[in-house]
Amino acid sequence: MSFNSFGHLFRVTTWGESHGPAIGCVVDGCPPGINLAETDIQPFLDRRRPGQSKFTTQRQEPDAVRILSGVFEGRTTGTPISLLIENTDQRSKDYANVARAYRPGHADITYDLKYGFRDYRGGGRSSARETAMRVAAGAIARKILGNGVQVRGALVQMGPHMIDRSRWNWDAVDRNPFFCPDAQAASSWETYLSEVRRAGSSVGAVIEVVAEGVPVGLGAPLYAKLDADLAAALMGINAVKGVEIGDGFASAGLRGEQNADQMHMADGRVVFETNHAGGILGGISTGQPVVARFAVKPTSSILTRVRSVASDGTDTEIATGGRHDPCVGIRAVPVGEAMMACVLADHLLRHRAQNPGAVNEALLPQEKGSVLF
Amino acid sequence: MSFNSFGHLFRVTTWGESHGPAIGCVVDGCPPGINLAETDIQPFLDRRRPGQSKFTTQRQEPDAVRILSGVFEGRTTGTPISLLIENTDQRSKDYANVARAYRPGHADITYDLKYGFRDYRGGGRSSARETAMRVAAGAIARKILGNGVQVRGALVQMGPHMIDRSRWNWDAVDRNPFFCPDAQAASSWETYLSEVRRAGSSVGAVIEVVAEGVPVGLGAPLYAKLDADLAAALMGINAVKGVEIGDGFASAGLRGEQNADQMHMADGRVVFETNHAGGILGGISTGQPVVARFAVKPTSSILTRVRSVASDGTDTEIATGGRHDPCVGIRAVPVGEAMMACVLADHLLRHRAQNPGAVNEALLPQEKGSVLF
Amino acid sequence: MSFNSFGHLFRVTTWGESHGPAIGCVVDGCPPGINLAETDIQPFLDRRRPGQSKFTTQRQEPDAVRILSGVFEGRTTGTPISLLIENTDQRSKDYANVARAYRPGHADITYDLKYGFRDYRGGGRSSARETAMRVAAGAIARKILGNGVQVRGALVQMGPHMIDRSRWNWDAVDRNPFFCPDAQAASSWETYLSEVRRAGSSVGAVIEVVAEGVPVGLGAPLYAKLDADLAAALMGINAVKGVEIGDGFASAGLRGEQNADQMHMADGRVVFETNHAGGILGGISTGQPVVARFAVKPTSSILTRVRSVASDGTDTEIATGGRHDPCVGIRAVPVGEAMMACVLADHLLRHRAQNPGAVNEALLPQEKGSVLF
Amino acid sequence: MSFNSFGHLFRVTTWGESHGPAIGCVVDGCPPGINLAETDIQPFLDRRRPGQSKFTTQRQEPDAVRILSGVFEGRTTGTPISLLIENTDQRSKDYANVARAYRPGHADITYDLKYGFRDYRGGGRSSARETAMRVAAGAIARKILGNGVQVRGALVQMGPHMIDRSRWNWDAVDRNPFFCPDAQAASSWETYLSEVRRAGSSVGAVIEVVAEGVPVGLGAPLYAKLDADLAAALMGINAVKGVEIGDGFASAGLRGEQNADQMHMADGRVVFETNHAGGILGGISTGQPVVARFAVKPTSSILTRVRSVASDGTDTEIATGGRHDPCVGIRAVPVGEAMMACVLADHLLRHRAQNPGAVNEALLPQEKGSVLF
Repeated sequence: MSFNSFGHLFRVTTWGESHGPAIGCVVDGCPPGINLAETDIQPFLDRRRPGQSKFTTQRQEPDAVRILSGVFEGRTTGTPISLLIENTDQRSKDYANVARAYRPGHADITYDLKYGFRDYRGGGRSSARETAMRVAAGAIARKILGNGVQVRGALVQMGPHMIDRSRWNWDAVDRNPFFCPDAQAASSWETYLSEVRRAGSSVGAVIEVVAEGVPVGLGAPLYAKLDADLAAALMGINAVKGVEIGDGFASAGLRGEQNADQMHMADGRVVFETNHAGGILGGISTGQPVVARFAVKPTSSILTRVRSVASDGTDTEIATGGRHDPCVGIRAVPVGEAMMACVLADHLLRHRAQNPGAVNEALLPQEKGSVLF
Repeated sequence: MSFNSFGHLFRVTTWGESHGPAIGCVVDGCPPGINLAETDIQPFLDRRRPGQSKFTTQRQEPDAVRILSGVFEGRTTGTPISLLIENTDQRSKDYANVARAYRPGHADITYDLKYGFRDYRGGGRSSARETAMRVAAGAIARKILGNGVQVRGALVQMGPHMIDRSRWNWDAVDRNPFFCPDAQAASSWETYLSEVRRAGSSVGAVIEVVAEGVPVGLGAPLYAKLDADLAAALMGINAVKGVEIGDGFASAGLRGEQNADQMHMADGRVVFETNHAGGILGGISTGQPVVARFAVKPTSSILTRVRSVASDGTDTEIATGGRHDPCVGIRAVPVGEAMMACVLADHLLRHRAQNPGAVNEALLPQEKGSVLF
Repeated sequence: MSFNSFGHLFRVTTWGESHGPAIGCVVDGCPPGINLAETDIQPFLDRRRPGQSKFTTQRQEPDAVRILSGVFEGRTTGTPISLLIENTDQRSKDYANVARAYRPGHADITYDLKYGFRDYRGGGRSSARETAMRVAAGAIARKILGNGVQVRGALVQMGPHMIDRSRWNWDAVDRNPFFCPDAQAASSWETYLSEVRRAGSSVGAVIEVVAEGVPVGLGAPLYAKLDADLAAALMGINAVKGVEIGDGFASAGLRGEQNADQMHMADGRVVFETNHAGGILGGISTGQPVVARFAVKPTSSILTRVRSVASDGTDTEIATGGRHDPCVGIRAVPVGEAMMACVLADHLLRHRAQNPGAVNEALLPQEKGSVLF
Repeated sequence: MSFNSFGHLFRVTTWGESHGPAIGCVVDGCPPGINLAETDIQPFLDRRRPGQSKFTTQRQEPDAVRILSGVFEGRTTGTPISLLIENTDQRSKDYANVARAYRPGHADITYDLKYGFRDYRGGGRSSARETAMRVAAGAIARKILGNGVQVRGALVQMGPHMIDRSRWNWDAVDRNPFFCPDAQAASSWETYLSEVRRAGSSVGAVIEVVAEGVPVGLGAPLYAKLDADLAAALMGINAVKGVEIGDGFASAGLRGEQNADQMHMADGRVVFETNHAGGILGGISTGQPVVARFAVKPTSSILTRVRSVASDGTDTEIATGGRHDPCVGIRAVPVGEAMMACVLADHLLRHRAQNPGAVNEALLPQEKGSVLF
């Protein structure tokens, strides 16, 4: 058990605070012989990096990742992979008032309550900066999953504004600063978020992550269910308050007939006619796309003055200046993808250990040669 | 790592299939010296037991739990507690057609895909029957938490019908067959669910679980967050498709000012003015009520004939007779409570290991003597 | 983390006290589709069972094992396997004096010091009776390893008397009551141990366990080394005080030239000329026999009156009557085999997860088709 | 589960190869509020550092440790502590022949067999260089244990030459290049090891580690026994082939009367008259000194030409030049101490979680105020 590790066979341990000398992670359990270089990881970090539009914090961190171990002559050796990113843009002076008072809605107060004190610079360990290491680990996880598995995320709701799913276009995602798959929505969000930003306020968001090409059989009953592990992985991202799989909360309103994903055979393999289940039944992947959504609350770092208390037990008020994201949900998109990739890679290894040959072949003859076998 | 265990210091391992000789669990890590007898566990099992109204499956299982180890002269010894419930009402013949064909929306097919075959009797390992052991373990977890912590659950939505939260009354919960805190809603649900049941159909539900008196400081950043562990615990209950904490998905639509739980001091302790956060900030408990909700899909065992496939790779149709719950969400209420209790007990022990004395006492002078110290 | 579990992917959780209603274990992670019945397990339990000669305790327990879950139509399903043995011969009255005073050299006092009280009947949880479940789990581990792997143990020293290794004969092991591979030594030990038993005394022993046919590559650097896991598994058997691999402590006295297991190629595969390493280099199996030895101290339950203290903090003297083994090391032989088998099975699954295809084929062409691939 | 982590609540994850850019570790679970700086760790690294006498490898590494996270204003924050040491003296050319052929008795071949290839520079991950991080983690563990616990090690056998235990003097340990507690033996070892070194050969050794002031109650039955965890921790050090606790293998030759550590009360607390048990009964600490010994084999890097095979499956011969230790056991002394400290710190936290108040106070009235309570 470790507080700062996740995964079992593909296991990631992260460390570092926002304003310390560096942040990093150790990825243990990666199979040997996989081609891996910094250039495989950097593009994913670049997608997440702040300062790329006016809608994310203006902190400027190149976030250049270094591989310190576990790779020899361009290939993973099976030993732990240490990744490190130096912190370069640390303006500690921005955080003077935070040292004394607690931002409502922020982890400031609970760190103090739990540990007796905290590293208050830039949120310390609770800073979203740590998610860079999740993204880096996710890039390695993608390598394990192989090209047959595609993990993509998108922002499907900003504040109260949802996309029109009929306009969903994956190609649109990288053409706007919001990872929004609905170009029309993205356009209107630009106006909306500019207003929020100018007001020194913040808004929440909902992110959807979809993994296609996932092998059947990942996830294990009853306490290593794929959906339960995804729930923990996504709920553990900063500011996330809800997670759902497939139809999620909407499935509560359905009848059994509506919710059942009916099946038939085609070309000698099972075909699901719908995907209310989000690709997971009984905690085990069906081979359909795995679909998860998570809700991100608005950041607590706002210019509006709010009632709070100080660490000496007195009343105070606080407004948070500094450089913050008006919608932290935007940068949570690559983080959500990374967590999905890490969970899938871990379960791929776990499945392979227990079930190297098991599968009902009558249902899936052409799956041979896939990532599982 | 174990597929069938959860928790780290308060650790529960369950075993058993619906139609085997028995089901059981092993609870490891329970502190010594706690008074414990079967009579402490049985009432919680009785609340979950089927066959108590026409709205739950008519299987008749006394579900009498036996303690086989770990208790001596009425007190826990600190060694593993083995609990066992014999299966008595097993009508295997009911499941003949399920052996061959897969119920759409059910784990039948994924077990076969993962393991190559399955124990199809009554759902085997995927049967909701296993949740009895979660409830039993939860009863022990409550003992560890002590009387200062109260964990209660309620059904807040059945199918598309929500309660009116202004009528919330905890006393109402045990006066209707739905664990519904809104007596008026419960009354109308009775009519509604009778219709669903007669139609051989099923509906989903949403359950809310609230823990009051939770000590501050439970949960650990970054991969042992209390909310992340709750998300896994609740998503891992059969048929659950979504989990949220506090305002959950609704928080995506809020602005930072709306979402911030402002604070002031009163009687020398910090008071939160609202609880959008659901009692958890940065993955750590604030001392406010911990509030979680989860969505249960409608059961896939319905009388309506639906398209499916058979294990030999042919098309078929299937309708599920037998004794099933029209709304499995009802019996998920005590299960949700139990999972919350288990997660809290585990985190209480974990916190105690690392932080026996740490806390900012300026904020919480009168917390001394609480369960944490 | 669990105090009463071992292994990671092949994971065993045991429960039960000597004089409770039953003892049992849960074996999680077993691959599906393996033929398994009680008759596969019972013979190993019978080898360990007391009361078979005058040299083991006269407790009479049939030790009949029942499989309660995880097996369907004669095959493992991949879900947890629950095993249970009822306790039938419980003479609690024998232990009256032990309730109050502590046997020197026994865990009586440390249980009280750790937990504040203990189940004193028959040693409670510290009773060697629990090792029956290790033997049962070991029988399942052997199934996973397959017939190509043979795990055997033998008593190589009783008190100060060692075997003559030049007379080693595996066939002799089952022809004497000591699992001794040297028939001549066994004969003289019979006289020796009879004297010890009549004197109400006890002696220690050394057991050697050898696993042949172990696939290359099991064990993982640096904190899942095969030898480190074996050391924990064997040191964790009751009364064990030392563990060594290959030449063990004797290797401290060697020079590098003497200790090096030189190699050459033969028939296209590497051949080690000696096995000082005991089949493990750098924590990873070489394909040679894995050789481990462990030392068992004499049991503390003796008729001689010794100085001790009572639980109320007063001086006392104690002599232990009841039914005890003059040489508990004898029955540790099947236990040692079982622990070796469990560790190997766990590492086989772990290796398969990370390294399904990796191996230097130039060295091991004919290993294809072995248990690993 | 992680291959490169050890401990459960005090958890250490190491990474890095001998000739990569750096080595490091992450220490997770350290309690908050402990004073910690590089200067608390460096002295232990300096004791282990090579190149300090002619009897250790002449590699010159300053081994200057940096703390990258988890410490704020001189105190631990409860978040993960990242430690890093840069590799500065890397002469990769020394290892050219090792790239192709396998050193008999070395992990070269098993890494290739397991992973298909390896980082051969300086032993890569299997290099003893990694033990620097164990020593660093051990320094933090000592901080958790506090000044009341003293963990010390000594070399008690070099090659076939044992110390005279009647001359044991802890003060002598730091006055000779061997950590030898017997000044007279140290003097003769100097001559002996010079001869070994000149011959390009190597010898084994036995190290004893003693922890005094260990609180009672550490270790948990049955699969988290203190002695079992020590066995794994010590056996996992490079080149270790045997571990024993207390009388160890010698206890096999004893009778029950000889082995029993008799007890009496003195000044209201229990006093053990001897310590055959090495401070552990039933896997739980007694409060006596915890005594462990481990055997280190001679290093396989020797100048003598020996038969071996090459990675292309051909016969070859190999002699290892470069800079190696004639007795690697010497530098294993601080490593053994560190592993003992880490295991004790982990168990202290584990015990505190489950048993904050439990203890038989009749036996230990004056233990109050000790590290446990």
